[in-house]
Amino acid sequence: MTRGLPRLSSARAPLTREVEVIDEHGERGMVSIPAERDLTVYVDRRELVTLMTLGAQPELLVLGYLLNQRLIESAADVESITVDWDVNAAAVKTHAGIDRIEERTAKKVVTTGCGQGSVFGELMAGIDRLELPDTRMRQSQLYALVNAIRLQESTYKSAGSVHGCALFTLGEGGERGEGDARMHCFVEDVGRHNAIDTIAGWIAMQPPGQLEGGRVFYTTGRLTSEMVIKSAQMGVAIVVSRSGITQMGHEVATRVGLCAIGRATNKRFVCYAGAQRLVLQPGLA
Amino acid sequence: MTRGLPRLSSARAPLTREVEVIDEHGERGMVSIPAERDLTVYVDRRELVTLMTLGAQPELLVLGYLLNQRLIESAADVESITVDWDVNAAAVKTHAGIDRIEERTAKKVVTTGCGQGSVFGELMAGIDRLELPDTRMRQSQLYALVNAIRLQESTYKSAGSVHGCALFTLGEGGERGEGDARMHCFVEDVGRHNAIDTIAGWIAMQPPGQLEGGRVFYTTGRLTSEMVIKSAQMGVAIVVSRSGITQMGHEVATRVGLCAIGRATNKRFVCYAGAQRLVLQPGLA
Repeated sequence: MTRGLPRLSSARAPLTREVEVIDEHGERGMVSIPAERDLTVYVDRRELVTLMTLGAQPELLVLGYLLNQRLIESAADVESITVDWDVNAAAVKTHAGIDRIEERTAKKVVTTGCGQGSVFGELMAGIDRLELPDTRMRQSQLYALVNAIRLQESTYKSAGSVHGCALFTLGEGGERGEGDARMHCFVEDVGRHNAIDTIAGWIAMQPPGQLEGGRVFYTTGRLTSEMVIKSAQMGVAIVVSRSGITQMGHEVATRVGLCAIGRATNKRFVCYAGAQRLVLQPGLA
Repeated sequence: MTRGLPRLSSARAPLTREVEVIDEHGERGMVSIPAERDLTVYVDRRELVTLMTLGAQPELLVLGYLLNQRLIESAADVESITVDWDVNAAAVKTHAGIDRIEERTAKKVVTTGCGQGSVFGELMAGIDRLELPDTRMRQSQLYALVNAIRLQESTYKSAGSVHGCALFTLGEGGERGEGDARMHCFVEDVGRHNAIDTIAGWIAMQPPGQLEGGRVFYTTGRLTSEMVIKSAQMGVAIVVSRSGITQMGHEVATRVGLCAIGRATNKRFVCYAGAQRLVLQPGLA
């Protein structure tokens, strides 16, 4: 039996709110701050976890969370995800339940995040089995990608205090090797793991053949081990960050052959690992 | 019976490592990245959690973690904490065990952090019972504090990708109301929750009367709800951040009457909540 993609609700809620502040001149004014709400996830009526989220795309967040925690194997395992902001709940209905869910959610690893992120199960389990696609990126494509992020409208620009990430695919480029990087989705959240989970959920909802070309993941946050692992799990061989890398992120990237580029702003960057995937064009620097 | 403070080991490990990178000119060079290691915490020989940490002050981190998760009531509940980096383990020995530890670590709330931070127990439980001290801070003291952070030597300056935080106390100041803010400890970690937990551990190890004067907590990270709650739990009524605030951070700060100051760099800042604790000196702006 071939199962289709899950049905998702389209719950929406304001992404920012205005608050009164006082500045260094003693003057009162209004500024926007990002929304942040709790979303309790129930899987087949059993409470699983409470996520704190901006709330932009809660259904994709929940789907991606289940995937990245490896509680489900594919989106087709899920029949529906219904988010109701009146009660801050996401009801997940699966086709056949989640095997050994008690056991698989019992092991706590408090990871880096900027906080004490929780991944269930063995953080590193299975990373040696990951086979990454043969993606290569030209320096011009990297610049095109960074520029697309710069131009993107965002909650960050209006309210700050959120992390953003985006999924790109690389095209063949033109004769002169110019940039060609297409942004498919851009996600922001108060937690950057939420943001990457939402992208994983988005990918899982695409029909086959929709995402041609090498995938590149961009994040405003640091390249920590989980960011690298989650990227690799999404079939992404190149990650780009505005920020830097941690030691475990570096180790995992090196181990799986993932290209990790950090401090990427304007036309500057540092390639920490997997430089064989980066086609340098020094004339562009 | 009065119990003394716990005995702590003094485990040390390198805080940075050098990795080879390639830059936008195609040139190879070495850069420092922050260390990141796993530390599995065993309480009375029972595995509790694995923290990913820079590893600067692991014993204080573990102590503060237990306190901030409210698994212990005071440092005196702990007989010893022994960290061994050869096996990446922290052995916690308590005087009388931790009551109902299974039950109290069962509830997962995945919080903002920059990731999906885990706090055990009810995030908001008990915040209405918190009584904050009557701390007030002059604008000049805020500037002194921000300047002290600017001058601080740090892993961030050499390797980036870590969060820093610090605990200050405020003095009486001089006749002209000039700044007087004393930095007691400065902590960095790959996770900012680790950093604040380490400060909680440090506070818990101080003899009574050691920390006179109003306490101010500084963080490079965003003011999320847990950062605000953890600050309030440490008897801190004023928090200062280089970054912004999230909605839940704002709500909790407002509810407990905590002064939340963000975007604090050089002589600029925004006071999001609790402005009654801030003594403005508009001539200084």
